[in-house]
Amino acid sequence: MSSRFERFRHRLHEIIFEADTWAGRAFDVALLVLIGLSVVTVILESVPSFHHRYGLLFLRAEWFFTLIFSIEYVLRLLAVRRPLRYVFSFFGLVDLMALLPTYVSLFAVGGYELLAVRILRLMRVFRILKLGEYTSAAELLMYSLRESRAKIIVFFLFLLGLVITLGSLMYVIEGRTNGFESIPLSIYWAVITVTTVGYGDIVPSTALGKIIATLIMILGYAIIAVPTGIVTVSIARAAQRGVSTQACPNCSRQGHDPDARFCKYCGEKL
Amino acid sequence: MSSRFERFRHRLHEIIFEADTWAGRAFDVALLVLIGLSVVTVILESVPSFHHRYGLLFLRAEWFFTLIFSIEYVLRLLAVRRPLRYVFSFFGLVDLMALLPTYVSLFAVGGYELLAVRILRLMRVFRILKLGEYTSAAELLMYSLRESRAKIIVFFLFLLGLVITLGSLMYVIEGRTNGFESIPLSIYWAVITVTTVGYGDIVPSTALGKIIATLIMILGYAIIAVPTGIVTVSIARAAQRGVSTQACPNCSRQGHDPDARFCKYCGEKL
Amino acid sequence: MSSRFERFRHRLHEIIFEADTWAGRAFDVALLVLIGLSVVTVILESVPSFHHRYGLLFLRAEWFFTLIFSIEYVLRLLAVRRPLRYVFSFFGLVDLMALLPTYVSLFAVGGYELLAVRILRLMRVFRILKLGEYTSAAELLMYSLRESRAKIIVFFLFLLGLVITLGSLMYVIEGRTNGFESIPLSIYWAVITVTTVGYGDIVPSTALGKIIATLIMILGYAIIAVPTGIVTVSIARAAQRGVSTQACPNCSRQGHDPDARFCKYCGEKL
Amino acid sequence: MSSRFERFRHRLHEIIFEADTWAGRAFDVALLVLIGLSVVTVILESVPSFHHRYGLLFLRAEWFFTLIFSIEYVLRLLAVRRPLRYVFSFFGLVDLMALLPTYVSLFAVGGYELLAVRILRLMRVFRILKLGEYTSAAELLMYSLRESRAKIIVFFLFLLGLVITLGSLMYVIEGRTNGFESIPLSIYWAVITVTTVGYGDIVPSTALGKIIATLIMILGYAIIAVPTGIVTVSIARAAQRGVSTQACPNCSRQGHDPDARFCKYCGEKL
Repeated sequence: MSSRFERFRHRLHEIIFEADTWAGRAFDVALLVLIGLSVVTVILESVPSFHHRYGLLFLRAEWFFTLIFSIEYVLRLLAVRRPLRYVFSFFGLVDLMALLPTYVSLFAVGGYELLAVRILRLMRVFRILKLGEYTSAAELLMYSLRESRAKIIVFFLFLLGLVITLGSLMYVIEGRTNGFESIPLSIYWAVITVTTVGYGDIVPSTALGKIIATLIMILGYAIIAVPTGIVTVSIARAAQRGVSTQACPNCSRQGHDPDARFCKYCGEKL
Repeated sequence: MSSRFERFRHRLHEIIFEADTWAGRAFDVALLVLIGLSVVTVILESVPSFHHRYGLLFLRAEWFFTLIFSIEYVLRLLAVRRPLRYVFSFFGLVDLMALLPTYVSLFAVGGYELLAVRILRLMRVFRILKLGEYTSAAELLMYSLRESRAKIIVFFLFLLGLVITLGSLMYVIEGRTNGFESIPLSIYWAVITVTTVGYGDIVPSTALGKIIATLIMILGYAIIAVPTGIVTVSIARAAQRGVSTQACPNCSRQGHDPDARFCKYCGEKL
Repeated sequence: MSSRFERFRHRLHEIIFEADTWAGRAFDVALLVLIGLSVVTVILESVPSFHHRYGLLFLRAEWFFTLIFSIEYVLRLLAVRRPLRYVFSFFGLVDLMALLPTYVSLFAVGGYELLAVRILRLMRVFRILKLGEYTSAAELLMYSLRESRAKIIVFFLFLLGLVITLGSLMYVIEGRTNGFESIPLSIYWAVITVTTVGYGDIVPSTALGKIIATLIMILGYAIIAVPTGIVTVSIARAAQRGVSTQACPNCSRQGHDPDARFCKYCGEKL
Repeated sequence: MSSRFERFRHRLHEIIFEADTWAGRAFDVALLVLIGLSVVTVILESVPSFHHRYGLLFLRAEWFFTLIFSIEYVLRLLAVRRPLRYVFSFFGLVDLMALLPTYVSLFAVGGYELLAVRILRLMRVFRILKLGEYTSAAELLMYSLRESRAKIIVFFLFLLGLVITLGSLMYVIEGRTNGFESIPLSIYWAVITVTTVGYGDIVPSTALGKIIATLIMILGYAIIAVPTGIVTVSIARAAQRGVSTQACPNCSRQGHDPDARFCKYCGEKL
């Protein structure tokens, strides 16, 4: 590719993917406002009374946002060196899915509600956090969770084994006549109980079932201490270091050390 | 202004806004007792049986408290150098709103219940905490929360994105026939679930909806670890320092370092 | 008093109030077993089917336990130097209340159920914790909570102000027709919501009410971080020190430093 | 026994009980996949619609898994030096109970549902955690919980006393007409409330009952801080050390220090 296009792409990448320059910040803010408005539109349209009164307005807004986001999508394809990597990245797929339902609705019926996926684009709000002090806060949290990943996975495996075991036990104890109609439903009940949510749509009726339920509640109440302890220790550690917020111009990944001069994932110069 | 009025105002400020002197402490305690009584009056009057039996008594108590608080409001205006700044400060607006409903009820009907706002004045209880060891405890907590503000905001933005995304998803999955009547209502359900409150007024009916609900519950159960970790680390840090509790005589703001000799917000000598 | 009685009392105090000697430990264990059995008796008697079948057996067990505990109560009176101080101490009142209902039932009807108070004696289980490693664990926890008392009180005052303010607000917004019948009931709802208990017996019906409820839930979900942070920091600190478990022979209070040679409350030699 | 059989058993022990070699890892992974599939089978069979349609398939799968696990059980018996110790160990009993229901169903009716116990075998998933970084995470968590065992037991004793006391109190206050039918049921309610589960199947009706309930909720909301603090401090400490993951070839117990060369439970060379 020509060096001129290369420079244009570099500039485009700075504006769209980075937030270090004035133009980059402005782009991010404008995009977030548009995403926010489009999400509010989708949310409000789902309310029957609004839908009946302002149906046409919602339709126009939908097409307006879809066109804007389509242009943005094309620009993103131009800005990165490896477009396919962007297309199949998490945000790339979300960006595409936020466009498709509107176009699909031209040919088919009922696909409209899938526009709800556009809401996922809100996660880009974490990009704008690059503005100001929120960067380091977000990076620190991400770093803490990444660092304690193994411990958290172990905890969740334990929780999974727990709810399956206790759910099955309650299925045997309470039985189908008391609302524990199958093991999957009993596991659903166990999760409701162990997480202390407690809807109350399924509750034990037998004495033994209530004793088991008591144990599950106390267990769920107590073991919340474990992930909390894990994350607290992680944050305490991470708070003693600094984490860089620069994204790689080639592969767009973050998490580089403050003194890193090359992307640790693809070797590109930062 | 005359230096004599200036001295009077300085003395008044010390009594009303500070709690360092004997008179200041006495004023604060008396005011809190009155606010407490007036709040208890408003609370009890809302109970139908009490209202029917002691209606006249409640009316008299209401006017008694309103007059006392009106005098206090005027004194506060006199005590600060910039009355307008006080009027439009948070506590200034609360103080005013705690008076208006009674006066308005002379001319209009139904404004009475707005007296409930008087309850906000209870927050002045944090001022009396200046008495004794509670000061540093309150200051330390405020300081900890302020210091970890950025991280907490990031966490809440994540939570916001989560409940909007999952609420919309559940609206698509469960649909209007199962009680998820609109996306806002589904978001309301997602908040009930992710915070582990679990009223049970809206519950998923479909198998897929229950699976998603299970994920939301476990997520909500686990990510409570994040704000807890943030605040714990903050408190641990803050506990190693001391925070002054002096309020600026000019702008009434607090949070000055123990060795500060001038207000860091307006430069007034402390 | 004679020095001989003094020596007898000292020995009695060691057995009944301390757990350092063989006899003291044996007394504590036997007492706890008896308390446990008497509590199980009271609990089981409350179940209708058991009460009908084993009514006479329960009556006899009740008198057996009452007589044993009466003897124990007299011995406790003899063992301490200031009996009245024991009588009006927390445990003294509990011990007395655990006896009275049975005696009262000789003259009056219906006082029986107050025997439930006997369950409070179970708290003596914390005394037996003197056996083994549990002492230092219990002492450490008590010490941590005592040390962070001021911060915890400030937090609860804030929580109190919050539920009163938000409860009143919801009373105004939802009104009596939606189940928020009075401000006290609305405060009850606010506590159910802010603590994430969520019975679901009272739920908001209006759109504005649901928005406020959402805010309360998220607030309650997040501010649990504050007491957790306070206690965690306290425990971390306390874990670095040792706390003595000796009780004063004169006033029975604990919490003395490991190197204390005299009771810090009454000056008695330890 | 012959040294040749000894060597065979040593090799078998390495494969079945350890995960340090290639064969050991492969065995663990294959076993976990089989356990997972057998559990999924039991779970799905409990769903009425699946059971009706694929009944024969489920029966065959059940026998397939039972035979495989029977062979595995015999191999485990051969691999350890003291088979009886394995048979009566926790995992030994679980492994046996995961086989029996199928065999029993040949002679008796209805024992089938006890196959749910097979789900407990899933706990072997913690053995596969030996693969990679998850080992040290799991060990660290176990170590933390073991180290803070005394404090956690003290906390649970306190919680036990609390729910019994408050449950009995509510039984006296609310009485049988309001759903608090017996003290055990009231204790069940107290656990639901103190753990913030809040099913809503039993709720207080009287004013005094609601006030007590409010106190229990706030207490339960606040004291979660205690176990969290305990575990956090424990994890913070444990994170500063390393824990070995080797299992003893003789008694199969873990938790040895990284530099341990002999089993601390039975003296076997590691």
